[in-house]
Amino acid sequence: MTSSLKTMSRETLLDLETTLNRELELTRANRMSLDLSRGKPAVDQLRLSDTLEDAIGGNYIAADGTDTRNYGNLRGLPEARALGGELLGVPAELVIAGGNSSLTLMHHVVSTALSTGLWEDSRKWSNSAQPAVLTPVPGYDRHFTLSEALGIEMVNIPIGDDGPDMDAAEALVQENPDIKGIWCVPKYSNPTGCTYSDEVVRRMAELPLKAAADDFVILWDNAYAVHDLSDPPDRLTSLYEAARQAGTENHAVQFASTSKITFAGAGVGFVSSGATVLDALEATLSASTIGPDKVNQLRHARFLGGRLADHMQAHAELLRPKFDIVLDTLENELAALDIATWTHPRGGYFVSLDLNPGLAAEVVELAKSVGLTLTPAGATYPYGHDPEDKNVRIAPTFADLEELKSAMHVLTLCVKLASVQQQLEETG
Amino acid sequence: MTSSLKTMSRETLLDLETTLNRELELTRANRMSLDLSRGKPAVDQLRLSDTLEDAIGGNYIAADGTDTRNYGNLRGLPEARALGGELLGVPAELVIAGGNSSLTLMHHVVSTALSTGLWEDSRKWSNSAQPAVLTPVPGYDRHFTLSEALGIEMVNIPIGDDGPDMDAAEALVQENPDIKGIWCVPKYSNPTGCTYSDEVVRRMAELPLKAAADDFVILWDNAYAVHDLSDPPDRLTSLYEAARQAGTENHAVQFASTSKITFAGAGVGFVSSGATVLDALEATLSASTIGPDKVNQLRHARFLGGRLADHMQAHAELLRPKFDIVLDTLENELAALDIATWTHPRGGYFVSLDLNPGLAAEVVELAKSVGLTLTPAGATYPYGHDPEDKNVRIAPTFADLEELKSAMHVLTLCVKLASVQQQLEETG
Repeated sequence: MTSSLKTMSRETLLDLETTLNRELELTRANRMSLDLSRGKPAVDQLRLSDTLEDAIGGNYIAADGTDTRNYGNLRGLPEARALGGELLGVPAELVIAGGNSSLTLMHHVVSTALSTGLWEDSRKWSNSAQPAVLTPVPGYDRHFTLSEALGIEMVNIPIGDDGPDMDAAEALVQENPDIKGIWCVPKYSNPTGCTYSDEVVRRMAELPLKAAADDFVILWDNAYAVHDLSDPPDRLTSLYEAARQAGTENHAVQFASTSKITFAGAGVGFVSSGATVLDALEATLSASTIGPDKVNQLRHARFLGGRLADHMQAHAELLRPKFDIVLDTLENELAALDIATWTHPRGGYFVSLDLNPGLAAEVVELAKSVGLTLTPAGATYPYGHDPEDKNVRIAPTFADLEELKSAMHVLTLCVKLASVQQQLEETG
Repeated sequence: MTSSLKTMSRETLLDLETTLNRELELTRANRMSLDLSRGKPAVDQLRLSDTLEDAIGGNYIAADGTDTRNYGNLRGLPEARALGGELLGVPAELVIAGGNSSLTLMHHVVSTALSTGLWEDSRKWSNSAQPAVLTPVPGYDRHFTLSEALGIEMVNIPIGDDGPDMDAAEALVQENPDIKGIWCVPKYSNPTGCTYSDEVVRRMAELPLKAAADDFVILWDNAYAVHDLSDPPDRLTSLYEAARQAGTENHAVQFASTSKITFAGAGVGFVSSGATVLDALEATLSASTIGPDKVNQLRHARFLGGRLADHMQAHAELLRPKFDIVLDTLENELAALDIATWTHPRGGYFVSLDLNPGLAAEVVELAKSVGLTLTPAGATYPYGHDPEDKNVRIAPTFADLEELKSAMHVLTLCVKLASVQQQLEETG
């Protein structure tokens, strides 16, 4: 029976270190190639949409008579916009359906906010010498690299079980007019898996009113809107409704995509906001495209129409055993030792593991040395810098069950060894 | 038998004006709705690719084993890159295959040239207070709006039967370091239909060597690379080979797409340049996408593989009668009067009509008043400003044969009437 590492004697720790090192050497000898870094659907999930190909069935004409094969429709096909509306819980007319990547739409929104502004008036982020955004951490690395690439500074705030620390967010936006926005993954957040509480959503919708900047934008990346694993699923309060009540609908921009519903690389991305913002986005879009791939939009609308819930249920059945393996292994291997905490997501794609401060980079390196690839330490923080060096993102979806078991065994082994060695150093 | 308008007596002109006005009133009474502005494929052309849907056939795995359904491959699928290489006459490894729009790739290239530069060194266009590009005119309006949206000035140079005036281009780039590039549609140019001569291509490839700017870029939009209407087709000298000889391969960026090969809105776009430029483009792409739609890339590679020439021949058979109607009507209605000149393209999508100076806007307006939509006057010039107000772009592809005949009849009627009235005013 193990007990908290902190209460162990030096002799016990040294014995444990020897045992763990021996086990690690056996692992190394197996020359495995394991990977817990891939936040993408597995092949069996992709197969759920293999009949997407049949959805056109020789009829390329949309419900409104649009020939999807030809140019045009900058805002996308009406039935695709309706699908985006279903995902985001907003009216179809407030949705632009785009290409295969919601990240591209995010880049477009932030670029437009910077260069011409989102409101067809004189407000634009580039009026500030150094625009910045709030980044709840740990968070999604692509939001960080996108911001950095566009020259936007990032200001970290903590994220808890019910979402970002809104006291911190409100204080920062009130005092600093250069803070122009906040990145959010409001449901099954990447990587913690938390879903923002009703209270957080309401305060978020009011954040633009509190901000010193008059061009503040909530960047609401609802990537896992329908990606539930548990019954009942988490319910996310509608930002659309909350923003309408606060009168901030033109300062809330929402994103979704079918990337983790159908094909990760060949889906449809969506953006939604108030009518003014959509006009501004369409104006800037018109400089760089004649319209999105409407054939793929039609394919998706027909394939998912009326069966989105069933389709996501099929994903959940494939993913639930994987999350169970991750959580069971963490519980069995680490809980009693009191050397880590982790999240228990009810949906999404990740489990977030917090080690003792100072160990994340070491564990990632140690795992790599025995054949397990993990998301790089620090990736869940802006500039790749985890100030406490403690967060490890676990992505269990892509591996098959056996690989996942082996990978979690190796991961927890590395965590234990690094923790024992840290404890020995600290007490040595 | 008609004769040159300039030699007609005032009485003849007045009689002609009366006849033409009567005919115009009859046309107006017919309340037609005609359109010569749509530079897009007709439905029968789109139908040539309707079996594109069957190309996947349940097998989403590419030749190299890539699962096209999942994330990744920023440079695109190898077989799609090979297709781009075939279109552009370059090695597949120098191609990035993107999404459904080559315009988006052009925007990406120019944005990258501005913001971080294309060579992963300190050179970038934003080092200039006012970067500019050369725009051979008349040209493609989307190049102009893209440049304007990114804050780039445009400097017009004339285009002739063998391409841009290279004397003018060389003189301008030698004297002005703010001139950073030149837009080209080298084969069946939009709208004149000319194909650049061997000499022009060679001098173009050497232009970066002559430029005062060390970050000069040839933007080579080969939109009509395989869009021949005549036998034998025009042959465009390889810019890739010419640039390699000149040592300027990292200053020549080429574009192509399947938009006017398969589906205008649902094709695949391509960009090609030297290895250094591709590295820079991939770096900036990585901030805004996880990869292109590889399923659609696979679909295209399989559908067009080994049969591109036959497929384009089928397009030509549908388009040739339309170009014949345009050219025959212009010849029959306008030639003897000596009031206009026009191009005789051997491929592409447009015929360019030059009226007497000062008449283009008037003719477009007059046509509109009797139900014929033309491309807005000035659209073929930067900022929508045709300095001589003489160019009208004719887009014959989308209309069916009967509509096209009617439209050309109305167009030439309007040209004759406006020309007669101008002649009367000038001699009045």
